[in-house]
Amino acid sequence: MAEPTKQRIVTAALRTLTQVGFAGTSARAIARVGHFNQALIFYHFGGVHELLLAALDESSSRRLARYREALADLRSVTDLALVMRQLYEEDLETGHVAVVQELVAGASAYPELGQAMAQRMRPWVDLSRDTVERVVRGTGFEALVPTGDLGFAITALYLGMETVAHLDGDRAPARSLFDLASRFAPLADLLLRRRAG
Amino acid sequence: MAEPTKQRIVTAALRTLTQVGFAGTSARAIARVGHFNQALIFYHFGGVHELLLAALDESSSRRLARYREALADLRSVTDLALVMRQLYEEDLETGHVAVVQELVAGASAYPELGQAMAQRMRPWVDLSRDTVERVVRGTGFEALVPTGDLGFAITALYLGMETVAHLDGDRAPARSLFDLASRFAPLADLLLRRRAG
Repeated sequence: MAEPTKQRIVTAALRTLTQVGFAGTSARAIARVGHFNQALIFYHFGGVHELLLAALDESSSRRLARYREALADLRSVTDLALVMRQLYEEDLETGHVAVVQELVAGASAYPELGQAMAQRMRPWVDLSRDTVERVVRGTGFEALVPTGDLGFAITALYLGMETVAHLDGDRAPARSLFDLASRFAPLADLLLRRRAG
Repeated sequence: MAEPTKQRIVTAALRTLTQVGFAGTSARAIARVGHFNQALIFYHFGGVHELLLAALDESSSRRLARYREALADLRSVTDLALVMRQLYEEDLETGHVAVVQELVAGASAYPELGQAMAQRMRPWVDLSRDTVERVVRGTGFEALVPTGDLGFAITALYLGMETVAHLDGDRAPARSLFDLASRFAPLADLLLRRRAG
């Protein structure tokens, strides 16, 4: 069975965005990559920005499902650091990081796209907050740890880390930060457990 | 005495960038804002990107000087949190944050601009690292604290925090993070001193 038209358009949009960046991702460029008539973009999505947001939603919902599954059973900072590093490498491989970076950059020129992007960050902030909550649950630190602020900080750090890596063309400092988290995680677990015990 | 021509062009470029964003900042737009002939941009700077980098350098060197002065005598996390919040508000007021955000966004479409931006982040990463070093000096924690990674993480967090705030048009979560730092700073100082004492 042929891939439904809307799905084909979304796939072509994701490919175009990661290949030529936001500035080059016109209706014409997407249509050329996907071998279809560019009028289909307007017919099915209303416009290029709407299509790009639909493409982000697809990439994001796939990654969110994967994150939720991988983070669901974590109860220690040590496991969290390990899983986060793996999820980060997957984000790079699947191209999800590139899609987010391009749309964040593009959004600076289009306020309505910025608002739409901001809404789409919320599930990630919530997921970060919920994960922190899960790790501190039962340790006696629940009331002390500002999980809402930490959820925001973790999302912002991830985004900023990728912005610097993208500018520089160098992911070594980002990977070094994951190594650091892994080194300090056992100490954090010890402190959390000591209070609980 | 009239402002020298190069300075007038830089000032007009900064104003254009903060008013209409990277995408709208053409030679023509800058020349219109500064009331001069757009050929002067090419004569003095060689091109718009070169001018924008010169404008960023001016804004950045002013802010770096201010940061260095404000952070020079700090020896506690409590003072650091207080001063950082004030510097953040100044970054917003002076428009420096907006200039950085616009150029980071623009750089995603121009790899050579990305490289130039990455170089310009280094003094900020170094300043963050040096400040962390200064705060932990003499506490007995010097060998334990990974100042290089923290310098990178602080710069990335600041950048990402501003990206989210910019998308959302809401700086409340960023300010809440500074409040959080102020709340936890005395505890951090207590832990650092206890080891030193």
